Amino acid sequence: MSVTAAKGFSAAGIAAGIKETGNPDLALVVNNGPRRAAAGVFTSNRVKAAPVLWSEQVLKGGEVSAVILNSGGANACTGPKGFQDTHATAEKVADVLGHDAAEVAVCSTGLIGVLLPMDKLLPGVETAAAQLSEHGGEKAAIAIKTTDTVHKTSVVSKDGWTVGGMAKGAGMLAPGLATMLVVLTTDADLDSETLDKALRAATKVTFDRVDSDGCMSTNDTVLLLASGASGITPEYAEFAAAVESVCADLGRQLIGDAEGASKDIKVEVINAASEDDAVEVGRSIARNNLLKCAINGEDPNWGRVLSAIGTTRAVFEPDQLNVAINGVWVCKNGSVGDDRELVDMRYREVHIVADLAAGSETATIWTNDLTADYVHENSAYSS
Amino acid sequence: MSVTAAKGFSAAGIAAGIKETGNPDLALVVNNGPRRAAAGVFTSNRVKAAPVLWSEQVLKGGEVSAVILNSGGANACTGPKGFQDTHATAEKVADVLGHDAAEVAVCSTGLIGVLLPMDKLLPGVETAAAQLSEHGGEKAAIAIKTTDTVHKTSVVSKDGWTVGGMAKGAGMLAPGLATMLVVLTTDADLDSETLDKALRAATKVTFDRVDSDGCMSTNDTVLLLASGASGITPEYAEFAAAVESVCADLGRQLIGDAEGASKDIKVEVINAASEDDAVEVGRSIARNNLLKCAINGEDPNWGRVLSAIGTTRAVFEPDQLNVAINGVWVCKNGSVGDDRELVDMRYREVHIVADLAAGSETATIWTNDLTADYVHENSAYSS
Repeated sequence: MSVTAAKGFSAAGIAAGIKETGNPDLALVVNNGPRRAAAGVFTSNRVKAAPVLWSEQVLKGGEVSAVILNSGGANACTGPKGFQDTHATAEKVADVLGHDAAEVAVCSTGLIGVLLPMDKLLPGVETAAAQLSEHGGEKAAIAIKTTDTVHKTSVVSKDGWTVGGMAKGAGMLAPGLATMLVVLTTDADLDSETLDKALRAATKVTFDRVDSDGCMSTNDTVLLLASGASGITPEYAEFAAAVESVCADLGRQLIGDAEGASKDIKVEVINAASEDDAVEVGRSIARNNLLKCAINGEDPNWGRVLSAIGTTRAVFEPDQLNVAINGVWVCKNGSVGDDRELVDMRYREVHIVADLAAGSETATIWTNDLTADYVHENSAYSS
Repeated sequence: MSVTAAKGFSAAGIAAGIKETGNPDLALVVNNGPRRAAAGVFTSNRVKAAPVLWSEQVLKGGEVSAVILNSGGANACTGPKGFQDTHATAEKVADVLGHDAAEVAVCSTGLIGVLLPMDKLLPGVETAAAQLSEHGGEKAAIAIKTTDTVHKTSVVSKDGWTVGGMAKGAGMLAPGLATMLVVLTTDADLDSETLDKALRAATKVTFDRVDSDGCMSTNDTVLLLASGASGITPEYAEFAAAVESVCADLGRQLIGDAEGASKDIKVEVINAASEDDAVEVGRSIARNNLLKCAINGEDPNWGRVLSAIGTTRAVFEPDQLNVAINGVWVCKNGSVGDDRELVDMRYREVHIVADLAAGSETATIWTNDLTADYVHENSAYSS
């Protein structure tokens, strides 16, 4: 499953010794062809990790034959030596596989500001290459975990072709794009332009709308690789829908495993004047620490929702806003609505609807509650 | 002290029964003249509480003879009835004092979306008026507390004239302006235009740069009232400096008492291309939940600082950024700097310097750490 669900791919996940715990920390995904088209979307953080700077260049060529991913170190803010290390990693993969380093994408995740232990990583590449398998997708997904409690994979199969993928990310999920590492593979026979179009369309409404803690990573990377091994070229719309479906599923899994979270919150903005307005309002609600604490306490505190909406530039009139929490319209026309005691918040998923009464556009942002566990997890260890 | 440090003012603070705890919840500040010039700055949240909508209109007249402030209820998102209640409160104050309701400012703080108990508030106005005293400033400061653990006052006295004030605010301190209630008084003989100019200049570099949790209130109000009772008209620069000094002192006290905080964090951005850049970068750092958790754990995690800087539009080159934490330059040229083990974070105040190496402008933003206590305080009760 995972990145090896689609035909034409092999993968491996091993423990190279990068993590002091001895847990798996190095994943290799190889596209065995016949074609090696690829597209990528990267963090919009201006402080980019060395592997992001490298992989952005690789993707400009539109072809990726392999992706090497390590957890246990982000290789971000590591200066020229960090970039040399990324380059050396790609060269090593190319050397072992007999490919061109310019077609090897590199992803890293972990602590910022620490150089990778290349004496462990480079031998690890050989070990991983030796273990490449058409059933290795699961192991690869496990090897990219950081504070993730579970590994994340998703697959959609259509008439003779498949899109599958793996993701890691537990904290620091935020827009611009997704603050995560994701590798998607397909055996559909498509060129890099089509992959790029489908990937950008999908991330815009999935990973870009997953906002765990408002923080944006230096390492975000989402890659889509096509082997063409199915020999089938699907209709664009059908392919794009499959990619979006896999991205949505992985995004939902990321929120479900967000650091310390006890509630998954679906913020749905309706009747906005524009989609941009809907996204801006949804993000503002999703980033409101006070609301996220209230949800943690199972308190349907709609005043926090209105406060958050009020900080945006979206089109709305304060006395026309409506808010529902888990189906109860607790705020009507900007004021007290139905009895908040009616709101049942015992379950993990919480659904907030913000009705701007200003148009017909909509957007959904996923976030989670803010918990004492989140604070503990992010204060107790450097990550 | 407090609002009665300056000559020409009386004040009172009483328990009207608005708070179920029976704690003081109603404050009255009266300007006894001879002049009643005033200026005000209000929340930039577009969802404004009824008392904000009312007081904005009052301040347009440039004269305020009294301010009535209640804790125990924000009177925000309460519809037309909420506005009627604010109006009735101002009328009651005017009636009792023999003033014009159009010169009575109203401030409220507490839970959003709940109507005030007018049957308790209106009789409370009479009780407060009966207790007005030139020594009542302290009691007034106590009556406006919500989750504040201490009341906040500050006074600057110059040659024959004084600026003093009180503030409340413990959570939800954020820019745009300050997310707090503040009343400043002076016996300097100045008109409302001068007061307005000095107040806006002061809040811009004080309350506007205090950002506890990134959330913006519906009720923020900062008022400056002048009685002229000293008979002295100070130089503008000297007066503006005194107002800024009182605002800075109160702002520092607000951060020091922020909900659940264990660290007060001074984020100083230096060598920015513009002051706007410096403020944007400072705010981005101050709002980074991951950094705020790391500081809570006494972890000098400078990677979080760089990640935050990278999300801004400020002028900088990633490989020229420098970051110091408590005097140790842990990040130099965008990469690893001095040994992070040298950073001593045992004390409550933490000083982060972000050097953008892009110019000569600077700005300082105050924030605090993110703690499990903050989560508990904001999840355990509706506020």
